[in-house]
Amino acid sequence: MEHAVIQLDPNLKKPLYEQLYSYFSNAIRAGHLKAGEKLPSKRRLAQDTGLSISTIETAYAMLTAEGYLEAKPRSGFRVAHLSVLSHTCTVLPTHTPAFCVPTAFDFSTGSVDTALFPFAAWRRLQRQVLADNEDVLQAGCPQGDETLRRAIATHLAEFRGVRAEAQQIVVGAGSEYLAGLLAQMFPHAIFAVEDPGYTRTPRVLKNCGACVAHVAIDQHGMQPVKLAASGARLAYVTPSHQFPTGATMPIGRRTQLLQWAGQQDGRFVIEDDYDSEFRLDGRPLPALQGLGPDRVIYLGTFSRSIAPAVRIGYLVLPPALVPEFFTRFGFYSCTVGRIEQQTLCRFLETGQYARHLSHLRNAYRRKRDAVCTALYQALAPFDPDIKNAHTGLHFILRLRCQCADKTLAQAMQRHHVNACPLCAYLHSPQESASNHGPTLVIGFGGLAQENILPAAQALAQAVADACRQQKTGAARK
Amino acid sequence: MEHAVIQLDPNLKKPLYEQLYSYFSNAIRAGHLKAGEKLPSKRRLAQDTGLSISTIETAYAMLTAEGYLEAKPRSGFRVAHLSVLSHTCTVLPTHTPAFCVPTAFDFSTGSVDTALFPFAAWRRLQRQVLADNEDVLQAGCPQGDETLRRAIATHLAEFRGVRAEAQQIVVGAGSEYLAGLLAQMFPHAIFAVEDPGYTRTPRVLKNCGACVAHVAIDQHGMQPVKLAASGARLAYVTPSHQFPTGATMPIGRRTQLLQWAGQQDGRFVIEDDYDSEFRLDGRPLPALQGLGPDRVIYLGTFSRSIAPAVRIGYLVLPPALVPEFFTRFGFYSCTVGRIEQQTLCRFLETGQYARHLSHLRNAYRRKRDAVCTALYQALAPFDPDIKNAHTGLHFILRLRCQCADKTLAQAMQRHHVNACPLCAYLHSPQESASNHGPTLVIGFGGLAQENILPAAQALAQAVADACRQQKTGAARK
Repeated sequence: MEHAVIQLDPNLKKPLYEQLYSYFSNAIRAGHLKAGEKLPSKRRLAQDTGLSISTIETAYAMLTAEGYLEAKPRSGFRVAHLSVLSHTCTVLPTHTPAFCVPTAFDFSTGSVDTALFPFAAWRRLQRQVLADNEDVLQAGCPQGDETLRRAIATHLAEFRGVRAEAQQIVVGAGSEYLAGLLAQMFPHAIFAVEDPGYTRTPRVLKNCGACVAHVAIDQHGMQPVKLAASGARLAYVTPSHQFPTGATMPIGRRTQLLQWAGQQDGRFVIEDDYDSEFRLDGRPLPALQGLGPDRVIYLGTFSRSIAPAVRIGYLVLPPALVPEFFTRFGFYSCTVGRIEQQTLCRFLETGQYARHLSHLRNAYRRKRDAVCTALYQALAPFDPDIKNAHTGLHFILRLRCQCADKTLAQAMQRHHVNACPLCAYLHSPQESASNHGPTLVIGFGGLAQENILPAAQALAQAVADACRQQKTGAARK
Repeated sequence: MEHAVIQLDPNLKKPLYEQLYSYFSNAIRAGHLKAGEKLPSKRRLAQDTGLSISTIETAYAMLTAEGYLEAKPRSGFRVAHLSVLSHTCTVLPTHTPAFCVPTAFDFSTGSVDTALFPFAAWRRLQRQVLADNEDVLQAGCPQGDETLRRAIATHLAEFRGVRAEAQQIVVGAGSEYLAGLLAQMFPHAIFAVEDPGYTRTPRVLKNCGACVAHVAIDQHGMQPVKLAASGARLAYVTPSHQFPTGATMPIGRRTQLLQWAGQQDGRFVIEDDYDSEFRLDGRPLPALQGLGPDRVIYLGTFSRSIAPAVRIGYLVLPPALVPEFFTRFGFYSCTVGRIEQQTLCRFLETGQYARHLSHLRNAYRRKRDAVCTALYQALAPFDPDIKNAHTGLHFILRLRCQCADKTLAQAMQRHHVNACPLCAYLHSPQESASNHGPTLVIGFGGLAQENILPAAQALAQAVADACRQQKTGAARK
C-alpha cells in the first residue's frame, strides 16, 4: 500500500495522532494492509507527510499496544497476524470492570510487565522437572504437591509473617477458583465484601451459591460496625493494599476484624493478599493471618509476581477448617498441572523467587516514580494528587476539576486511555463523593516504559476534553 | 544394614514374597534403611537367602510400586526419599472410591502409563513456547486461547465427529472443574447421573449446589423411562465407554436420549467422553454430540491421553448456551496456564498428538492383551469372563465363585491388589446382582509391564483366600 495517500486534516477536532491511528487501524481491519506487511519508518513517514516524529510515535505506540502492529527491534513495525488481533480483542483484563476495554494507554490494574518474567530460569527449571522425574506425570496430591506446599509455607513465613504448615495449604488454579471453593464450603453463608472493592469476587461467590453483603470501607478498610450489622459469617478483605483505594489497614482495624471473627463460632476473615509482594517503599506490613491464624483464611497468588499466564494461587486454611475442607474437596484433582507446580517449587526452593521479587520491586519502583512524575507534569493544570502509591501496582489519582466521572470515562475512551474511575468499583455506582473532581484508579504494571509520557499526555487531553464538554453542557442548560 | 539377618518362615500362611515385602517396608518406615541406600541385587539376595528370584522380584516390584524403593536402570534398587513416600501416601487415584488405597498391583481405573508420555516433544514445545512469544505471559482469553480452541475443534471433528466452532469451546483445569461450572450454570437443576457410575461427579455437582438423581443403567446405558421419571433437566452420561461397566451406548439409546432432551426447552445431555481416545479394536463410534450438537454439552480431557499431571479439559457448549455461559463466567480467568495451553496447541497443530494417540493405542492394546491373557490363566479355576475390553483403559471381570464382594475386597487389600468391585460404584452399594460371583472393574493403564503376571497371580490368590474364608464362615454358621 502506498502511504503517500494518507490524508490528515489539521483543522479537525480529532488530534493528528488519532487521525493517523484511525487511518492505519481501519486499513488493517479492512485488509488493505496485510499481516506481515511493513509500515514506513517513523522518519520516512514524517518526511512524506510533514507530521512530527512524536505524532507518528504516538500513533504507532497505540497501534502496537492494541495489537494491530508488531514492533521488532531493528526491523520496524509490521502488521500483526489476525489471530493475534482477534485474541487481543477477547481479553478482559483482571479486576477491570467490563466497560474498560483494553487500549493503547493501559492504566488498568490487572496487567504486569511481562518483560520482567524470569524467562531463562523458568525455561531451565521446566526442562529439569521433565528430565528428572517421571513421577511428576501421574496425578498428584489433590491439595497440591507437598514439596510445593512446604516451599510456599517457608516463603510466607519469611516474607509475610504467615504462620502455616504445609498441610494447611491448598494449591489451585488462581484466586477465583479458590474463592469459589470457599463459597462452596460455606453454603448459603453471607460473605461481606469491601465496597468499593473487586467487582469479580462477589460475582464468583454468588455463582457458587453464596450470599454477598457489600460493606462500606473508610480510610482504614472495612468498617466493623457495618460488618457486624451485615449478618456476615465471612469477611473478605484486602488489608495489605485495599483494592481499589490502595489503603493499608492499620493494626487497630485488623484487631477489630479478628475480634469480630472471634465473637462467634464459624466466623472467618478471608485475607486476599493479592499484591503484597510489591511493597515499594519501606518494609512490608506482615499479613493479618500472622495475628490470628485460627480466624483467618489467607489467599495468595503467583499470577502477579511471576506472570498472569501462570495460574497458581493458594489458600492457607486455619487448622480447624482443614478436616472439613478435605471431607468436601479431598477427592478433587489439583487444578494446577504438576509440571508447573514443580517448576514453581524449584523456583522457590533455590531462592530464585526471592531474588526475582527484589528485582521486580526495583523495576516497579522506578516505573511508579516515572508514572507519578509524568502524571504530575501532564496533569498540572488539574492539581493532581496521588495517594497510596507506597505499595502494589496501582494507586489513586485525584484531580481538581469540574468534569463528572462518566464524562471523563467517555473522554478517556476516545483518547485510548484505559483507566477506571474509582466509582466504577462501588457496588451502587455513584459520582465520586468528593466535590472537587474525579478520582481515578491508576495501574502501571502493564504500561510500557515508552508509553508512560504519551499515556500521561493522553490522559491530560482526555481530562481537558471532558472539562470542556462539561462546561458546554452546563452552558446549554 | 546387613541383609543376612533377614529371617523368613516358609511355614507361615503369609507367602514368602509378602514376608520379604513386610520386612523391607518395616525397615524403611522405621528408618533402619535410609533414603538413598542401595538394596542387594536380586541375584545376590537369592544366593544369600535361598529364596527364588521370582519371589524377590515380586517383593521388589511391590516395594517400588508403593514408593518405598526407586528402581534405576543399571544401578538397581535404592530406598526412596521420604518426601516421595509421604507424597505417595496422600495420592487418591482418579475415579477410585476412597476405600481402594493405591497398592503394588494397580488395577485402578484412573492411572495411565507415564512411560508413554511424549517427553522429548513436550519439552521441545514448552521451550519453543517460552522462547517465541512474550505475549504468552499475559492473561489470556477467559475461555482459553483461541488458537488452542481451534486446534481442539479440528481434532474433535476429525477423530470424534464432534461439530463445533472454536467459540463454543471452553478450556479449563480438568473435568471436575468444568462439571462444577455446569452445576453453577443451572442452579438448583436436577442432574441425572448413571448408576453405577462415577462416584466423584455427583459429589462435585452437589458441592456446586446442584441436585443429583441416580438413574439406573441397563446394558445399553441410562434408561430413558427412569430418566424421564427422575425430573432431571440434565443427563450426565458416558456413552462411548460407560464408567464403570465399559458398555458402549448403541445408536437407538442415543437417539432416545436426544429425544428426551428435545421434549422440553432447556434440557441437555452432558456427554463425558473421558477415554474415547483408547478405542483398541475397530473404529471408534462417533460422539453423541455429532448427532445432536444443539442438545449435547460435550466434556473432554487430555489428562488420560497425555498425562494426569497435565490438567487440561474442555467443554463444547451448544450454540444456544454460549451467551448465557459468558454472561455468567465470561470474566473468569482461564484456569489453565498459558504456557501449557500453547504447548498443547502446538502438539495438536503439528500432528504430533494424532501420532501420539496411535502410538498409545498400540501400546495399550498390547497391554490389554497381556493383562487379559494373564487373568484368564491365573484365574482359570474361577471361570473368568472379561467384558467390554474393546475400548478404554478398563474392563469388567466376572468370576464364578462363592465369595462376596466385601470379603474379596478385604482379601485383595491383604494381597496388595488395588481393584474395585463393580458394586462400589453403585449409588446404594449392594452385592452384585449376579448370583454367580463377584464382578470387578479392572483398570490396566497404570499397571507396569513387569507387574502384569504377579498382579494376576496376586489377584488369584486373593480370590482363593476370599473363597476359603467365605466357606469357613458359612461352615461356622
